[in-house]
Amino acid sequence: MIPEENMKLRVNGARLKRSLLELGRIGGTKRGGVHRLALTDDDRRARGLLVKWLKGCDLDVRIDQIGNIFGRTKGSHSSPILVGSHIDTQPLGGKFDGAYGVMSALEIVRTLRDGKIKPPRPIEIVSWTNEEGARFSPPLIGSGVFAGKFSPEYAYSLKDNEGNLLVDELKKIGYRGRTLPAPHEKIQSYLELHIEQGPVLEAKTMSIGVVKGILGIVWLEVFIAGESNQAGPTPMDSRKDAILASADMIRAVRNIAQKAGPDVVSTVGLITAAPNSPNTIANRVRFTVDIRSWDEGRVDKALNMLKSDVRAAALREGVSFKIRKIWRARHVQFDSKVISTIRNVAQTFGYKHMDIVSGAGHDAKFLSEICPTGMIFVPSVNGRSHCEDERTNWKDLENGANVLLHSTLALASSA
Amino acid sequence: MIPEENMKLRVNGARLKRSLLELGRIGGTKRGGVHRLALTDDDRRARGLLVKWLKGCDLDVRIDQIGNIFGRTKGSHSSPILVGSHIDTQPLGGKFDGAYGVMSALEIVRTLRDGKIKPPRPIEIVSWTNEEGARFSPPLIGSGVFAGKFSPEYAYSLKDNEGNLLVDELKKIGYRGRTLPAPHEKIQSYLELHIEQGPVLEAKTMSIGVVKGILGIVWLEVFIAGESNQAGPTPMDSRKDAILASADMIRAVRNIAQKAGPDVVSTVGLITAAPNSPNTIANRVRFTVDIRSWDEGRVDKALNMLKSDVRAAALREGVSFKIRKIWRARHVQFDSKVISTIRNVAQTFGYKHMDIVSGAGHDAKFLSEICPTGMIFVPSVNGRSHCEDERTNWKDLENGANVLLHSTLALASSA
Repeated sequence: MIPEENMKLRVNGARLKRSLLELGRIGGTKRGGVHRLALTDDDRRARGLLVKWLKGCDLDVRIDQIGNIFGRTKGSHSSPILVGSHIDTQPLGGKFDGAYGVMSALEIVRTLRDGKIKPPRPIEIVSWTNEEGARFSPPLIGSGVFAGKFSPEYAYSLKDNEGNLLVDELKKIGYRGRTLPAPHEKIQSYLELHIEQGPVLEAKTMSIGVVKGILGIVWLEVFIAGESNQAGPTPMDSRKDAILASADMIRAVRNIAQKAGPDVVSTVGLITAAPNSPNTIANRVRFTVDIRSWDEGRVDKALNMLKSDVRAAALREGVSFKIRKIWRARHVQFDSKVISTIRNVAQTFGYKHMDIVSGAGHDAKFLSEICPTGMIFVPSVNGRSHCEDERTNWKDLENGANVLLHSTLALASSA
Repeated sequence: MIPEENMKLRVNGARLKRSLLELGRIGGTKRGGVHRLALTDDDRRARGLLVKWLKGCDLDVRIDQIGNIFGRTKGSHSSPILVGSHIDTQPLGGKFDGAYGVMSALEIVRTLRDGKIKPPRPIEIVSWTNEEGARFSPPLIGSGVFAGKFSPEYAYSLKDNEGNLLVDELKKIGYRGRTLPAPHEKIQSYLELHIEQGPVLEAKTMSIGVVKGILGIVWLEVFIAGESNQAGPTPMDSRKDAILASADMIRAVRNIAQKAGPDVVSTVGLITAAPNSPNTIANRVRFTVDIRSWDEGRVDKALNMLKSDVRAAALREGVSFKIRKIWRARHVQFDSKVISTIRNVAQTFGYKHMDIVSGAGHDAKFLSEICPTGMIFVPSVNGRSHCEDERTNWKDLENGANVLLHSTLALASSA
């Protein structure tokens, strides 16, 4: 499966590290993280650097209507192997989440150029817009528009917390490109290399995770309406306190993870209150709920538990509430041929590997609906991610890029 | 006690209403409330209107180093009756909290001018800076500096949520006045007329509350440090979730009110989280706690319960925490002679009245430490305050101003 003449080929680990560190300086924080929200000035600068590097590899660069950046090797017109991830980050996030996948795609193209290797199929690097969903919710907007899951109009109409429209911010940074025909073209396969963002590979001392699929995810917003009043003179038994009601609901969100099934995780990651003043009872709270499981039935079970617990807490405090579903993504199983290609590469080159399930959503989720898709994971130190301490050993990063290189080559050589 | 020739004197209720409505338009909200935080542009405009009105009454106007505004009747040099309140508001607050006391002080001076009545002592109107503490914490800054409780340097160094220094904002709006000599001058008495901000007077169908004193108050800030991580891949049992820990602590704050004693109230009115992103476990939460009781022993008991509950919740989730005391104000008993003067006026003029305790802090708290002090309450409809729905019947507002008028006259005529 792996062309004999390429068996000795390896990426340049030092160059990969340099690219990651240089990109990580854009929006870099003092504590070693990166704060580079989608479609901000720092995102514009990071995109500029990426485009410069893509052109430096003599790739054909295109920007689509949602700002996804593509760079394709020249010369062949057959359907490409698409390889990439994203370069936006969480607030005070890390320098590997997303960036690692894009910089590794760049590194394998550079490695092939150095070795003067031209695979039978073109290789196309991609960097997706607003993967994180941290500035514009929902996440996975760029890949969602590309895969036809979201209309461009829907994506354009999203607003950040300050009320800025996504389309305006896209134009402001100069990355609203031309509309690509949908479903635009056949893609032979999509590959995404990513840090695990969890503790499993490290705990099992594995170097490579062969990703079988992605958990089902639901995102909700809960709105609570109470009654604001002076904290001093308002007796405890006549309060309608939105913050107190939210506290009971947040505790319930934690408890349902235990009750709905062994692999269910549930998180409240965002909360805002109004008027948010120390001596005034809050009349408005908004918080988000993130529930995930490989088993869709358990996601539903957790959802129902949540609704009933939220209702009970609201009744107890005399507040009203509204639950809005922001996003539901069914669990995804990746393509068996792509999975076995990755597993075979890891095996052949002697990397310690295991099959794994992704707890996090990735652009690969939407791509899997339009083409054969697979993902490769590398270990996260202490399982930390979405934070400035996010880290992966440089050797693991290099190993992962080598698995990406040879998986890409294997797929690019296949029919 | 009430001079016979003044028995028929009454304030002009229609004029009082006009002043309140005109002042309430500055920072007025669509839903009938007022959003006029201390030292903002709207505060500057409101101050400008007040100073214009004070000068229109031919008062000597002075601004002190912390921006308190004074307007004194001319002609006499003996110690004045100080009468007033504040004109800053809560975020999305009401148009009566504070403003009613200042507009009523203005109204009684206007009434005396109309009647060509010159009391033996000067009457001095005052509007205190940053009573609410909503923008710059702690509250009662203007009266605190005036009464020597806070140094001007301490007050100047306070910051709002955006990091703006109080002194810079004071200068920006042009209200950093000259330093007054401390303890500046003898004050014969201080009177403050205010809405109750609670449900007691309305429930007992009273028109006037004779305020005996103010509850003891403590304000705390609780900081929680957890560990931010991707919400999907991080197992439930290895989380250090600052939002979840805060939820348990907020529930504990509610419970201690029931356990510490029958008149204890406890409130979490402000919460912020970081990074505040739906799919990231929060690593930082800050929330405030407000505890009040007439009994200082119960405040201490509640404080101790809180510390132990916060520690338990933090241990359970594996997060660390810090509790900072922002402010502690012991309960205050007002001056018995001033109280009986107010009670006597309400009695003489036939207003249904009762003795009451203030659950809210007021500038009168600090004034009571430097001069004989008293407060008059009028009912709050549905007990609502610190919100746009805050309301008091116009008849009650007029009655309260009449009690203020005759209490002031009685005190201004006494030795």
